[in-house]
Amino acid sequence: MAKKLKIGIVGGTGYTGVELLRLLVLHPHAELAVITSRGDAGLPVAELFPSLRGLVSLKFSDPTTADLTSCDVVFFATPHGVAMSQAQTLLAANVKIIDLAADFRLQDTATFEHWYKMPHSCADILKDAVYGIPELYRDDIKKASVIGNPGCYPTTVILGLTPLLELGLIDFSAPIVADCKSGVSGAGRKAEVATLFAESSDNMKAYGVMGHRHHPEIHAQLSKLAGDKLDLIFVPHLIPMIRGMLSTIYVKLNTTAKAADLQALYEKRYANEPFVDVLPAGNMPETRYVRGSNQLRIALQPQLGTDYLTIVVVQDNLVKGAAGQAVQNMNILFGLDESCGLQVVPLLP
Amino acid sequence: MAKKLKIGIVGGTGYTGVELLRLLVLHPHAELAVITSRGDAGLPVAELFPSLRGLVSLKFSDPTTADLTSCDVVFFATPHGVAMSQAQTLLAANVKIIDLAADFRLQDTATFEHWYKMPHSCADILKDAVYGIPELYRDDIKKASVIGNPGCYPTTVILGLTPLLELGLIDFSAPIVADCKSGVSGAGRKAEVATLFAESSDNMKAYGVMGHRHHPEIHAQLSKLAGDKLDLIFVPHLIPMIRGMLSTIYVKLNTTAKAADLQALYEKRYANEPFVDVLPAGNMPETRYVRGSNQLRIALQPQLGTDYLTIVVVQDNLVKGAAGQAVQNMNILFGLDESCGLQVVPLLP
Amino acid sequence: MAKKLKIGIVGGTGYTGVELLRLLVLHPHAELAVITSRGDAGLPVAELFPSLRGLVSLKFSDPTTADLTSCDVVFFATPHGVAMSQAQTLLAANVKIIDLAADFRLQDTATFEHWYKMPHSCADILKDAVYGIPELYRDDIKKASVIGNPGCYPTTVILGLTPLLELGLIDFSAPIVADCKSGVSGAGRKAEVATLFAESSDNMKAYGVMGHRHHPEIHAQLSKLAGDKLDLIFVPHLIPMIRGMLSTIYVKLNTTAKAADLQALYEKRYANEPFVDVLPAGNMPETRYVRGSNQLRIALQPQLGTDYLTIVVVQDNLVKGAAGQAVQNMNILFGLDESCGLQVVPLLP
Amino acid sequence: MAKKLKIGIVGGTGYTGVELLRLLVLHPHAELAVITSRGDAGLPVAELFPSLRGLVSLKFSDPTTADLTSCDVVFFATPHGVAMSQAQTLLAANVKIIDLAADFRLQDTATFEHWYKMPHSCADILKDAVYGIPELYRDDIKKASVIGNPGCYPTTVILGLTPLLELGLIDFSAPIVADCKSGVSGAGRKAEVATLFAESSDNMKAYGVMGHRHHPEIHAQLSKLAGDKLDLIFVPHLIPMIRGMLSTIYVKLNTTAKAADLQALYEKRYANEPFVDVLPAGNMPETRYVRGSNQLRIALQPQLGTDYLTIVVVQDNLVKGAAGQAVQNMNILFGLDESCGLQVVPLLP
Repeated sequence: MAKKLKIGIVGGTGYTGVELLRLLVLHPHAELAVITSRGDAGLPVAELFPSLRGLVSLKFSDPTTADLTSCDVVFFATPHGVAMSQAQTLLAANVKIIDLAADFRLQDTATFEHWYKMPHSCADILKDAVYGIPELYRDDIKKASVIGNPGCYPTTVILGLTPLLELGLIDFSAPIVADCKSGVSGAGRKAEVATLFAESSDNMKAYGVMGHRHHPEIHAQLSKLAGDKLDLIFVPHLIPMIRGMLSTIYVKLNTTAKAADLQALYEKRYANEPFVDVLPAGNMPETRYVRGSNQLRIALQPQLGTDYLTIVVVQDNLVKGAAGQAVQNMNILFGLDESCGLQVVPLLP
Repeated sequence: MAKKLKIGIVGGTGYTGVELLRLLVLHPHAELAVITSRGDAGLPVAELFPSLRGLVSLKFSDPTTADLTSCDVVFFATPHGVAMSQAQTLLAANVKIIDLAADFRLQDTATFEHWYKMPHSCADILKDAVYGIPELYRDDIKKASVIGNPGCYPTTVILGLTPLLELGLIDFSAPIVADCKSGVSGAGRKAEVATLFAESSDNMKAYGVMGHRHHPEIHAQLSKLAGDKLDLIFVPHLIPMIRGMLSTIYVKLNTTAKAADLQALYEKRYANEPFVDVLPAGNMPETRYVRGSNQLRIALQPQLGTDYLTIVVVQDNLVKGAAGQAVQNMNILFGLDESCGLQVVPLLP
Repeated sequence: MAKKLKIGIVGGTGYTGVELLRLLVLHPHAELAVITSRGDAGLPVAELFPSLRGLVSLKFSDPTTADLTSCDVVFFATPHGVAMSQAQTLLAANVKIIDLAADFRLQDTATFEHWYKMPHSCADILKDAVYGIPELYRDDIKKASVIGNPGCYPTTVILGLTPLLELGLIDFSAPIVADCKSGVSGAGRKAEVATLFAESSDNMKAYGVMGHRHHPEIHAQLSKLAGDKLDLIFVPHLIPMIRGMLSTIYVKLNTTAKAADLQALYEKRYANEPFVDVLPAGNMPETRYVRGSNQLRIALQPQLGTDYLTIVVVQDNLVKGAAGQAVQNMNILFGLDESCGLQVVPLLP
Repeated sequence: MAKKLKIGIVGGTGYTGVELLRLLVLHPHAELAVITSRGDAGLPVAELFPSLRGLVSLKFSDPTTADLTSCDVVFFATPHGVAMSQAQTLLAANVKIIDLAADFRLQDTATFEHWYKMPHSCADILKDAVYGIPELYRDDIKKASVIGNPGCYPTTVILGLTPLLELGLIDFSAPIVADCKSGVSGAGRKAEVATLFAESSDNMKAYGVMGHRHHPEIHAQLSKLAGDKLDLIFVPHLIPMIRGMLSTIYVKLNTTAKAADLQALYEKRYANEPFVDVLPAGNMPETRYVRGSNQLRIALQPQLGTDYLTIVVVQDNLVKGAAGQAVQNMNILFGLDESCGLQVVPLLP
């Protein structure tokens, strides 16, 4: 491939933005063309993020004047609602869109509007948008123009349950319980008291227990795979680590499942997936096993004496849970090797 | 009360040991008489724990020669099996025993032997031992000679469920799921690679998923309260914080429960308990709200659209989950004010 | 003492504010009367800080209407400049003032105005204010009406050097180098990106290297003790811990010092100080040895082959470095036992 | 370059070992051939370090039977003394040696024996060994057979002072003070109480204040550059972060230096160095700016009103401070692009 992809990033100053930069700066087929920021227009990117000194020479552009239409693909690492407002213009210019916010994740606009408190302004574009989990929708992604990049929690829960759902192994008489834990970077690079070091270090809490925006997203995707109605209990927790997400999922198995070799079924389902790793039976993943990488690792543990299976899933919330999956989607969109630019070895210790 | 209680601590060099020291050193009715250590006999306590300089002048004694029989009460902050081996001698000398290990927690010795891989050497003493949760067994504790101080995880799960169990509000057709999270001090002050800072900081994992020693302890206590058989799924997790424990409990409500004001029932049940605090509806506890204190705080959250209730419980695993509860038990045993020596304000931030 | 002191706290929502509450709530001679907050007036204190549930029933008052003149003493846990603006009114009502900000720390108003970018509005009151380090100015504090409570860094550097300065043992031909390290709570409870968990965890930096407000404060106090001009290099660093401060001080000894038993001189100087502890030779302090307590611990280490002495000082920046020292000053002001309310055992682990 | 280098690693289970694996596994010209471990022979590497699943298929070999002589280069990520004992055999087989321990760092064997408490067994090999700082000894490294890879602290202090020393800008009448701070991984992957999470989290301390093994190493290298005797005060500190090292260096400038543009001199000295970055004047480095990467970043700050310059240096102690520098040395030894395999973007946040 002779010509490099021209990349635009809208909202480059948050954690998903800088994570896109970390991955794309070494991507052999990508060229950073435009990075926008409302607050920091004019500032060299490497001045805000000195980790990128010597690697990124771009400055942040003003989003109102940035030339995004000359890009091949634009990533939105923005608050919800921004991608919607620019989608039409970009599509008209034949630019692919990968939105890391929620604008193109929920096909049901009423649900979107209920949870995100804003009208959905482009239902027609949404209709053709693809939910960007390559392990489920790779063929659709290849042909898509707009990708709704999944939320971090949904990625773990959906991929943790996919083999069971596809094979019809869950007893839906009991709800699926997803007890999920996230590092603090998931809250974003916003100045807030609750995520100060002195508030969230050496401390943990559940939050969003009354309802969290990822609930409808997970529920919609699981229901689609199940072809059925199901109950979902989803409780997120904030853990004092920078990155990392671990989801512990409790699910009731049906009669078929109890007779099956679930470990083998999971291994078979993900055998050819470069970024999903099923651990050998008896092993449990830790979040550092994927720190900084696009890997998602899964372990299964039947709960003896019950009909329940416990599934433990880990990922780096900023990589497979956000920017890494977005790059994986970009690679698929443009017919590149899916692992291109994503061959990062996890940082351990 | 003119005379101070003479206190013995067997195994004073671990985290529950030093935590007992922290609490007892300011206890107005306690006098530290003997602290033993196999490895550090002869060493001044304040040399190993300089946080106690100026407060503790004792040296560690050799456990084989220490005069424990002259104490009023002996705490065992030891590995499992030690209290059993010394109980008879101490009881003969009229010394009360509070064991912070598991020797006197499980009335079923077969279960004990299965999980702790050692024979139980004093089934007769065990028979009269009391499980030391004051909120459940205060009257028995008053008359006891031997207290089996509860495990850290069990304290949170049992107190989190007590009101529901006592009032018969749980539908046992579904298992109770206890997804529990603990700070690293729960692993003790043992030199091990897995709990090194560079291994367990900025990282989390589930562990003991195939089976954990606290499962039979929790199960036995819940069953006793339920007067019925029940299924329990218990998955502990290790969180990068020094202290603190948060348990998220998922339980199916029966028809009676669904019509009840559970918030009011919990508040009523614990209204007179000095160390159990039910948060107002809509609030969620954080582990730092109890850091260093003997408080345990509970919040309830019905899961909309399901029959399930989520209960979130926090405690300091070394205080209400170990040494603080032990001191609370001591206060009851000797007719002291139950809060004596336990009026510590949580350290926040 | 029959009547309790009526306490006012202006600015109760920051870390020094909540730390004052933690200490005063158990103080046998103090009664919390008024706590103000501009932003949270009307909110129960225990709602903002649930660690204080069951201990504090007060609500935050509006600072413009709060009745501070009926208090015996008012603590200012506010931004710089607030205490100045209210001092006259309070003094007229015979209320003692303890300012935890900088308004009454620097006798030279020009220096104050240069570093704090505001005019000093009550030079006459400042003239009679006492710099609140009890170990140096106990007798003055007893008679004072206004205490300028020292900055956190200054407390460590001044007390670390006091014995040498009082005895004239430093060779001032070389500058004193104070390389100081602070936990993140020192930056306060303000929403800022730089002190977010995801920014300051697993990370450290020097800051204020071009100049820090505590430089003139330290310099003034050291010069006063030295009776001489001296050069000071002071570089603060931000460390990923909630609390704790460690200062490593490098100082050139003069000929007299080289012949002296410095360890003995330090021990003698602080023998009767309840909150300054000189560690035995060969020991080094850790910040957790004082976590949550008002202790400050010092160790000395001669640098072999040179004329230099290294002094390592630790304190909890929020206690001896702020609120604890303020309560110590209050105790002295009102003739109470200096340790009253300050008998907190450090939280270790 | 058609043929890949065959790599041997002796002692692959420590932190420098796994860090070599992280870097070499993606190195285009390296092939992992042998990794030894006394304790874990037979175990697949990816079982001990699941972060390497899918990337490393090797098992640990027994060091007594491992075929190291067929390698092109052998890294020793071992305790001190191991490389010495195998050097002769490997050199006889024409294998290059890069020792990450101290065996080949100190040319003065008496000093080595004093600090490392063991005889030096191959003074003749030592004589020809090169101290592996490429920025100083690149030409010697090209021709070397044995590289003594520098200690972590020495790398920061030496590179922080090199421009001043080479140009003769320091006034040696005052000692150089190096106040250095390290993450806990520097203590290695050894089961020890002092580096447990519950001991070293939310805590800091100075250590080795009476003398540290890196003192003679730093002193020897600085003296060599100075061509003169100099005094060095070096105090290391342990900081609660996994990786990262920050050294604050205080140095007295001579008359020439005071007239010079030091910022420009530093920038010029390191202009062509791929892994040394001088920050613009007024900026200060943070350890996360280099997390996981081989970069070392330097900032200068004159201390106003004094003759002193403060130099702040950061690196990742496991990369530029150990394994990364070792790979950089390997690249030079074999005529590869010096950055080969080292193009890792720092992980931020």
